[in-house]
Amino acid sequence: MLYEKLKDYANSGTYPFHMPGHKRIAESGLPYEIDITEIDGFDNLHEPCGCLARLQKDAAELFRSRYAFALVNGSTVGILAATRAMTKDGDRVLIARNSHMAVYHAAELCRLDTEYILPDTVDGSGIFASVSPASVEKMLKANPETSLVVITSPTYEGVVSDIRSIAAICHRYGARLLVDEAHGAHFPFSDSFPKSAVQCGADAAVTSLHKTLPAMTQTALLLTNDDGLAKEMQRQLSVFETSSPSYVLLASVDRCLTFLKDSRGAFDDYTRRLLEFRQSATSLRHLSVAHDELINAGNVFDFDIGKLCIFGNGCMSGRELMDTLRSDYHLELEMALGDYALAMTSVCDTDEGFDRLINALVDIDSKCKAADHPKTITASFLPQKRCTISEALNADGEMRDIDQAEGKISREYVRAYPPGIPIIAPGEVIDCEVLRQLMALRTAGNEIVTDNSAFPLISIIG
Amino acid sequence: MLYEKLKDYANSGTYPFHMPGHKRIAESGLPYEIDITEIDGFDNLHEPCGCLARLQKDAAELFRSRYAFALVNGSTVGILAATRAMTKDGDRVLIARNSHMAVYHAAELCRLDTEYILPDTVDGSGIFASVSPASVEKMLKANPETSLVVITSPTYEGVVSDIRSIAAICHRYGARLLVDEAHGAHFPFSDSFPKSAVQCGADAAVTSLHKTLPAMTQTALLLTNDDGLAKEMQRQLSVFETSSPSYVLLASVDRCLTFLKDSRGAFDDYTRRLLEFRQSATSLRHLSVAHDELINAGNVFDFDIGKLCIFGNGCMSGRELMDTLRSDYHLELEMALGDYALAMTSVCDTDEGFDRLINALVDIDSKCKAADHPKTITASFLPQKRCTISEALNADGEMRDIDQAEGKISREYVRAYPPGIPIIAPGEVIDCEVLRQLMALRTAGNEIVTDNSAFPLISIIG
Repeated sequence: MLYEKLKDYANSGTYPFHMPGHKRIAESGLPYEIDITEIDGFDNLHEPCGCLARLQKDAAELFRSRYAFALVNGSTVGILAATRAMTKDGDRVLIARNSHMAVYHAAELCRLDTEYILPDTVDGSGIFASVSPASVEKMLKANPETSLVVITSPTYEGVVSDIRSIAAICHRYGARLLVDEAHGAHFPFSDSFPKSAVQCGADAAVTSLHKTLPAMTQTALLLTNDDGLAKEMQRQLSVFETSSPSYVLLASVDRCLTFLKDSRGAFDDYTRRLLEFRQSATSLRHLSVAHDELINAGNVFDFDIGKLCIFGNGCMSGRELMDTLRSDYHLELEMALGDYALAMTSVCDTDEGFDRLINALVDIDSKCKAADHPKTITASFLPQKRCTISEALNADGEMRDIDQAEGKISREYVRAYPPGIPIIAPGEVIDCEVLRQLMALRTAGNEIVTDNSAFPLISIIG
Repeated sequence: MLYEKLKDYANSGTYPFHMPGHKRIAESGLPYEIDITEIDGFDNLHEPCGCLARLQKDAAELFRSRYAFALVNGSTVGILAATRAMTKDGDRVLIARNSHMAVYHAAELCRLDTEYILPDTVDGSGIFASVSPASVEKMLKANPETSLVVITSPTYEGVVSDIRSIAAICHRYGARLLVDEAHGAHFPFSDSFPKSAVQCGADAAVTSLHKTLPAMTQTALLLTNDDGLAKEMQRQLSVFETSSPSYVLLASVDRCLTFLKDSRGAFDDYTRRLLEFRQSATSLRHLSVAHDELINAGNVFDFDIGKLCIFGNGCMSGRELMDTLRSDYHLELEMALGDYALAMTSVCDTDEGFDRLINALVDIDSKCKAADHPKTITASFLPQKRCTISEALNADGEMRDIDQAEGKISREYVRAYPPGIPIIAPGEVIDCEVLRQLMALRTAGNEIVTDNSAFPLISIIG
């Protein structure tokens, strides 16, 4: 156990003439006493053969994957490393448009030629539905040279895609499938959750330990069953990840794995709490917690009951709901978008926490008056692509007010926030349809974000 | 103060329906109670405008730079982001060959065309000397299109280059200068240390807080005085760094800055300890701590008295010395190479620690017998380059035993470890001179490391 090993070293009386510079001098609230990096006997994350190799082997077993790489720079580094391990310069890749920016960044770093699938939304909710196997097959038929498909499952809101069917289609067309499973690290630990991506045949998956399991922020896992891929991932991780990984973060991964081994019962309590909460939520008259509409939506394959999407249904906006829960009930939610707010739950939540949330919602619900707050709207179509993201980024540019940029090619990402999915990617044409969509998103209260953070000024190819 | 703000939030009674999944439930030894990521009121590291913007402003003031970016993926991410911010695809860059692998990785990611400067070594020591301004000027004259020069100062062993002169030369030739100052974060805090790189005119510098200051492993700063560069660095950091940064690491940066503001006296004590230690070390008969030979070496511009290079001078190898100090004296050193071992010190070291080290050395010294352990040897010349690193990595390859690879072009890095500087980079020719150098390094006991970790098998362009 890495954590115990670190404690032992801290208590060994050994004086550190090595990094880090704090020399393990106690700092209240910060774990300096176990904060070391590679020293004799503590292995090397980038060439593991000792305690870190064992830790990763335990992780692989628990996550039912042949290989697991412990990550200390979040799922972001897993996406970058996996994409570079699975592509060559200039490859054609197929990306679900509702991917995390890390996927777009991987595409620009690897000079990939991107095609996109824009999932439907769940009727009236503005939530992205599952990526349909049919849409993947249609795109692969049209782009048979595609080497990699990247989708997000579950989404931020918990929508899960049919990985088994999508993986089978990808393999039939000679492409590999990478799943951004950052929000699904808890899937392998209860039958009440969907099956994990690697269990369904994905070639690789990235999952965040810190998001839904008891582990520190920035900890994640990169999973694969493919021997050759694992070798290349190891190298790519050494490219993107610090050469001095934090053993505090790694100890937190170790403690998380120990928890997963010893606390299976905790997941039964967790799923019971979720189902009880969802049952109680059916009594709400104005507000609602997305459940049946997801089960019944024709375009949702499955969903994660751990994500609580609470809708204002016109009575109040997601932001109002989130602010009210914070100010009046001391409940801090994850995010708000349009007319819903998202509560993230985990196996570490308590009955008391769920009680406080349902009681707050019932209370707010009782004071709700019907109103017509705008529904959530999100990207509804894809702009035309004129060149790859990396070609656009390498082109000379000029700044232009977006309203004077019609017909120009963007040199940067234009994102609606939250959740930050690109409305325009570099290399895409800013036509009147795109401008109309941007206007609609702004009117609906979405914040429009660009890298130069000077919106409505935007960088275009000059 | 971010740290206090996190403590306040932890004690606010607010229930977290947000990430991370541990829900701040106390975990002995791990700081879950302050481990959050971007939530309302805690700013966003990738678009800072609140408490993180203030933290970075404080850092900039303390490090006498216009801009400072707090890094949570080590100096590695600073090197990657700064290089990409300062170059365009395919640019010619000039790199000191004794650079950290992160610099080579940046070059392959940015498709850079690399030229190298191989510094001399300090007579008889095997330690790399300073990068001479003359060698930079010679290379820039021969490669006037060079857009970026990257050097390491101080080195692992504490050797510092003449940044002021090198920066002036770079600017005269229209190139920018990036300094890997990972081992010099303490420089701005005492006149007994060399001046910091940005103070000497470097366009950008990366410095590790965790290496020589009281901060957690993985924390670092990216520094620049250039407004335009700062904007581009901000974007590049969002490409390479997790979108969910650890507020524990950021709190540790905050505590480190507070220490630097409040504890100037501590650096007087530190430098006194260092000078007293070095004075006592002059009494050693067999062993020696590099000092006068560095001051007097014609090819060392300056050095960091905080790095203690302890030489066996033939009586024992660095590895023997390091092992003896661990097993017999409970002193753990940073690393050993050839006939020296390196002790890393910091402002957090104590009189007791230095006493233990000098007493141990005196004791070992008294038992030393003259012997002729081999001197440290290191890379002594540069292979010929046939193509860029990225071209080689994208070429088809085959595995070959190194001894059957004469005349072939390498597809991977071949490094001598420690410290891991490439003897061969992808795209370089494996000729008989290179093979002779590799043989000499292996004979001298250096470990030869490749990415496929199957050495003597090596990947070559087929």
